Parts: sequence; structure tokens; C-alpha cells
Amino acid sequence: MSLHINSSRLWESLERSGEIGTIDGGGLRRLALSAEDKIIRDLFAEWVRAEDCALEIDELGNMFARRQGTDNSLAPVAIGSHLDTQIYGGRYDGILGVLGGLEIIRVLNEYGIETKRPIELINWTNEEGARYSPPMLGSSGFAGVYPVEQILNTPDKDGIPFGEALQAIGYASNLKAGARDLDCYFELHIEQGPQLDACGVDIGIVTGSYRAHGCHIRVLGETAHTGPTPMEKRQNALVGAAYIAAAVNDIGWKYAHEDAKTTVSRIECHPNLLGIIPNNVLITVDCRHPDPKMSDQMFSEIRDAMDEAAQKARVTAEITEQWLFGDTVFSEECIGLLRETAQSTGANFMEMPSQAGHDAYPVAGVVPTAMIFTPCIDGITHNVKERIDLARTVPGVELLLNAAVAQANR
Amino acid sequence: MSLHINSSRLWESLERSGEIGTIDGGGLRRLALSAEDKIIRDLFAEWVRAEDCALEIDELGNMFARRQGTDNSLAPVAIGSHLDTQIYGGRYDGILGVLGGLEIIRVLNEYGIETKRPIELINWTNEEGARYSPPMLGSSGFAGVYPVEQILNTPDKDGIPFGEALQAIGYASNLKAGARDLDCYFELHIEQGPQLDACGVDIGIVTGSYRAHGCHIRVLGETAHTGPTPMEKRQNALVGAAYIAAAVNDIGWKYAHEDAKTTVSRIECHPNLLGIIPNNVLITVDCRHPDPKMSDQMFSEIRDAMDEAAQKARVTAEITEQWLFGDTVFSEECIGLLRETAQSTGANFMEMPSQAGHDAYPVAGVVPTAMIFTPCIDGITHNVKERIDLARTVPGVELLLNAAVAQANR
Repeated sequence: MSLHINSSRLWESLERSGEIGTIDGGGLRRLALSAEDKIIRDLFAEWVRAEDCALEIDELGNMFARRQGTDNSLAPVAIGSHLDTQIYGGRYDGILGVLGGLEIIRVLNEYGIETKRPIELINWTNEEGARYSPPMLGSSGFAGVYPVEQILNTPDKDGIPFGEALQAIGYASNLKAGARDLDCYFELHIEQGPQLDACGVDIGIVTGSYRAHGCHIRVLGETAHTGPTPMEKRQNALVGAAYIAAAVNDIGWKYAHEDAKTTVSRIECHPNLLGIIPNNVLITVDCRHPDPKMSDQMFSEIRDAMDEAAQKARVTAEITEQWLFGDTVFSEECIGLLRETAQSTGANFMEMPSQAGHDAYPVAGVVPTAMIFTPCIDGITHNVKERIDLARTVPGVELLLNAAVAQANR
Repeated sequence: MSLHINSSRLWESLERSGEIGTIDGGGLRRLALSAEDKIIRDLFAEWVRAEDCALEIDELGNMFARRQGTDNSLAPVAIGSHLDTQIYGGRYDGILGVLGGLEIIRVLNEYGIETKRPIELINWTNEEGARYSPPMLGSSGFAGVYPVEQILNTPDKDGIPFGEALQAIGYASNLKAGARDLDCYFELHIEQGPQLDACGVDIGIVTGSYRAHGCHIRVLGETAHTGPTPMEKRQNALVGAAYIAAAVNDIGWKYAHEDAKTTVSRIECHPNLLGIIPNNVLITVDCRHPDPKMSDQMFSEIRDAMDEAAQKARVTAEITEQWLFGDTVFSEECIGLLRETAQSTGANFMEMPSQAGHDAYPVAGVVPTAMIFTPCIDGITHNVKERIDLARTVPGVELLLNAAVAQANR
């Protein structure tokens, strides 16, 4: 037996969500805990309550909508993702995972299909990290990666703490984060890369993740007048940072044939004035490689390039903070269930690693987890031009539906 | 006959000024039209009034302190510079020129020395450009380089217009800028370069200026996820800007043996977030060469490097604004007077071009002008570590004193 969703109802939900936080170019700006986030949260609450779900909010604003099972003493099967977006975000990144889950609950209700275990649909707070850094704060707090207090005190760029913003939109709560027993967690997400689209395959079963290794680099020089100071006396921190950025990009190209990549994403320059040589620049870079050993190799080349660039520009450069993620181990059992379900329903799929960070990463540390990818056109994402093809999205959502029901009946 | 100043009185004035806007490291932050600027202006007003000078303020806040001559129908000999500083500025840049002028008036009064022409001491508004861009706004408005209305409407980075800031510190006026007839203008300034210090010469008579050619470059790419997007699909505007910055610096080194230089001074990156490839970067660069033809050559190489960098990073790069200054022609007569005065008083001097911008540049367009440089230690300037040696500064101030008196008696 294979269950099907109502694809036009799913599309309607996505379109309705696409009206909240609209910006030019057809994208969304729906930063975590903003007024727009409140609107989509309220709508999501209304939708799940209309489906007779019990809604609970934890102290980080994570939303858990529970569809009861026939044996509610059993831990629920969880599915979820996030409803917040980047500053110039698309309409599907994260959103498809939550509203796909909503569609699953609607179908089950529509046909009166009962499951033994409850099913819980989750909206995690601040996945994007566009307002509160680092990303995946809600799910990371759930998984105990960071202390809840620390998350609540994290300020946005205007100094507003996470906890205060949560209160301001009416989503503060006393329910302890992470005090929930989940049987397993499935997250459906657009791929955010071009592979599925290019291969003409509609479903990616995520088997692991790329190792990502990033850092902030502080470059220090000396201010001086931009006019008379001779080249050999200049210690331009911005020039040092530029040499680093260029070298980091070149390292990305060196390993591009192995599907590795490097990014230079941020820069802050001080004093950043026309007549003065900059003395203090902060630059953020990262590298990713499917093979963790090679990612380490790339990062060590970045370190060497940093030292070389600093010497060339007569400045100092130092890594002030570094991070590593993507050594995530998804559950063999959950992956196996997705694989078998796909095979039994005749769905065409490929297995692939994830390259972006997802809520499923921290959650996988405490709950057996797996992910499903669906195609996004040309791999464009974190961009207002992010698009999906509904027909190519439905198979992934239906795989999630059938796998979740199978698991909930175990 | 050769007149001398009271060097310890000059030093006291400099030290007193050095208490206003003090920042760590012994430097000053005294942005134009700030609360600190008001304090030094008020003190300057008090000082010149105590010397029986009539003080007039024009509509741009430029301050003119007039010591009467014996024939006040004649146009005054003007001397001046600026009392504002960079954001991390020194204690002498500009300030020495104004307070050196004050010392000249004090000496003349002390010994009852009359001159035929009046002598006017000027404090120009916003020379540095650290608060209101471009620099030299007060003197440029005086010289008619920009319309007064435009200057008054120029906003600072918080959106406060120049005119409003002028009003707020009590220095607004109805006196038309530029309606003043000046016989000639002399500006004494620290060199802001290492030459005089290195050569052991105390006086530089400025014969001309380096051509400076600068521009803002807009680099446009595409936002995308920093994770899955393959290298060949990335259009990272920050990488494009970094390639440009590196190439611009390399061009500076190519011509460094001809005493040319290039600068990368500013960068703005958008959206400047960890998880997203930047799509919009503004970078500011310039080049300077003693020979205008070679400066043009360097700028054309910067253009080529910009196109090449854009192609390499798969982005577009375009010059959105460019400027050129330093084709300043100082007055042969004024230079001649300085040269003769130095020779007749036995002062050791060298002739040299100016490499930085100064109020004397715009003023030279409407009034016969010349400049005197004094040494600054190691050429360090636009830096809290800017220092001077008083003994090596006095000869320049005394040259200005003797030349100004000679001219005022013509």
C-alpha cells in the first residue's frame, strides 16, 4: 500500500507562506523571531490546531504539533524543519519540510488513518542564523549542543537578546528544551545544490554530510595616510585580507574536481575611511570536502595561505575562532527505512551526502535521524530566485509520508 | 632682520589642543562639527580674541581671525589649516598650521610689530573628511569647488546634514563663503610622509602635488548557499573585490621605485552573513604618482585588473564614481617668497611635492598659495602615534612668520 498527498493543497500552503515576508524578486525575508516570523508561526499554529493537533512551545520557541497515536505512551515519530528564512531567502528552504509535514498530517486525518505512535511536526527556531548566530540555534538547544541560557542571551546585531525577541512575539515558554522523548526524526529539505535537478532524480536519501571547516581571521596592520606613506611602509590590513580571500578561493578551485569548495562570506574593515590605511579587518572563510581528511588538508592550506598573505602585506593574521561541522552520523536504521520504503513504492532515488547545515545535524546527536532531499531548480538557494518544481517535489514528500507511517506503526 | 617665535608657548598651545578629543595611544578623535570640535573652536575663538583679532565665521563654519594692518583697505595675507582630526588621528595634522599661525600673531603682538596688510588666520571646516565626505569641504566651498547648498546638505553616516551639525554646535552663520578677498594664502603642515625626517632637513617648500586618482568600484555577483553551490556556479562579489584589491596593491609595488603608491581603503560587503555568498561589494581604491602621465597609466592598469578580476570571479565590476586631485598649481610668486625668505634667514630647506590633499589645494584655485612642510617622526600620520620634534618644527613656523610679514608689508 502506498499513500499519496494532495499536491495542490501542499502548493496552496507554500503559496500562503510565500505571502509572509515577501521581498522583491519573489523571495522572502522572514528572520527568526521577527514580526514576519510571528505571522507564519501564528498561521502554522492555526493550521495544526485545525487538524486537532496539540501544540507545545518550548523555552526556545521550538513548536511541536502532536497528532495522537493509538498508543500515546510510545515516543512519537518526529518530522520537521524551519519556517525562518535568510535575509534574501527563498520560499522553500526549510519551509517545504514543515509544510510537507503539515500536508502529511492533513492526508492522514482526511483518510482517518491511525498510527500506533503519535506523529510530531516540529518548527525549529532560528535555523538560518541570519538574525541570531550561529545557525540551528533551536535544534542545537534541543540537542544540548549549547546551554539554553547562552542561546537566550545571544544578541542580534542591534543587541536584542534571543530571549527578549521570543517574548516580544509571544513565543516565550517555560517548557524545558530537550525534555522530549522522540522515537526518531525525519527532515525533508530542498537539496540546496544542483545534483538532483541535473540528474533528473526526484529523491535524495541523505547518507551523511560534507565536513565543513570555517574560521574568522583577524588581520591587523597600522593606520597611515593613504597619500605620502611609501609602499614599503604600508601595513594595510585590508590588503592582507584580500590576499587571504584570493588564496582561499584559489584553494577551492584546486579541489573543485573533487566537489570541494571554499567560501569567503564576510568582511569587516576598520576604520573604513577614504583617507586612511585600514588597520583592522575581520574576514570569514570556510572550506568543505566530502572526505573529512581532505577537508583538513584544505584547511591547513588555508592556514598556510593566511601566513603567506600576512607576510606579503606586512600585517599579522590570526584565526580568532574556528568551527567544524558535518561529521554528522545519521541513523542506519532510519536511512534503511527510507531506502526500503522508496524501493517498495517504486520511487526513483539516489543516495547523497548533505553539504549544507540542517536542524537534522544537531538532532542526530540525540535522536535517530535521517533526511530526504528534493530538487531545487539549478541548485539556486539562499537567493530570491530559489524555485522548485511541484511534480518533482511530491515523490519526496510521499516517501516521508509512507516512511513516517511505517515507523509510527512499529 | 629675522623674527623668532616663542617655541614653548607654541608647544603649550599644541598640548592644550591635545587635551580635546583624547583617545587611547595619545591621539585625537575630533571629528568635524562634533562636541569636541566645538570645544577647540571655542578655545581658538577665545585665544584669537585675547590677541585683539576680529573673528568672523562664514556659512560653512570656516573661522577667520583678523589681525589689523596699518592699511586695512588692502587684502589680508592669510595663513591657516584645520583643527579637526581623523577618527584615530594625531595631535599635529592640521592643528600645527592653525596654532603655528596663532603663535605668529602672538609674537607680532608681543613685540608690537605692525604690518601694512592685515593678517588673517583661518581654521577650515572638515578638512579630514572623516565625518563628512569628501574631505576639504570648508576650503572647497570657499573656493567654489562645490555649491554651498550641496555641502550644507551632505549627510554624515548617521544622516545628520553638515548644516544641521554646524547649527548644533553654534557655528552656523549667514556670512557668504568665498566672499573674501585674500592677498595670498600660506599653509604650514606636517609632511605626513617620511622624507624630511629621513633627510634631516627641517623645512619643505612645497612646489606642487602628486596626482591622485581614485574610484569606487561596485562588484555584483549572486547570493547562494555557501555549502552545496559548486565552485563553477559561484559568483562571489567579495572574491571579485579581493582579486581587485590584491591586483591594485601589486600595481602599487610595480611603480614603488618611482615613489608611486596605491591604496585600498574601504570595503562594504552585502549581505555579509556567514551562510550566504555575497552579491554586492563596494570597494574604494586609488593610485598616486609624481608624474600625472604615469598616474594615468597606473589607473588604466587598475581598470584592466578590475576587468580581469571580475572575469575570474564570474562577477561584474564597474567604476561608479571616480576623482582626481593634485593637479594643483601653487603660486610661483608665493613659492619664490618662501625660498628667498629661507635663504635670507639661512634656513635649511628642500623643495618637494605634496602627496596628501590639503586645504591649500582648493584655495590655490582662487588665491595665490604656497605650502610649508615640517617633519613628522618616521612619517607616521593618520595614526595616534603621530609625533613631531619641536626643535625641528620651529624653523618652518619661523619661515612662515618671516614670509607672512614680508608679504604683508608689500
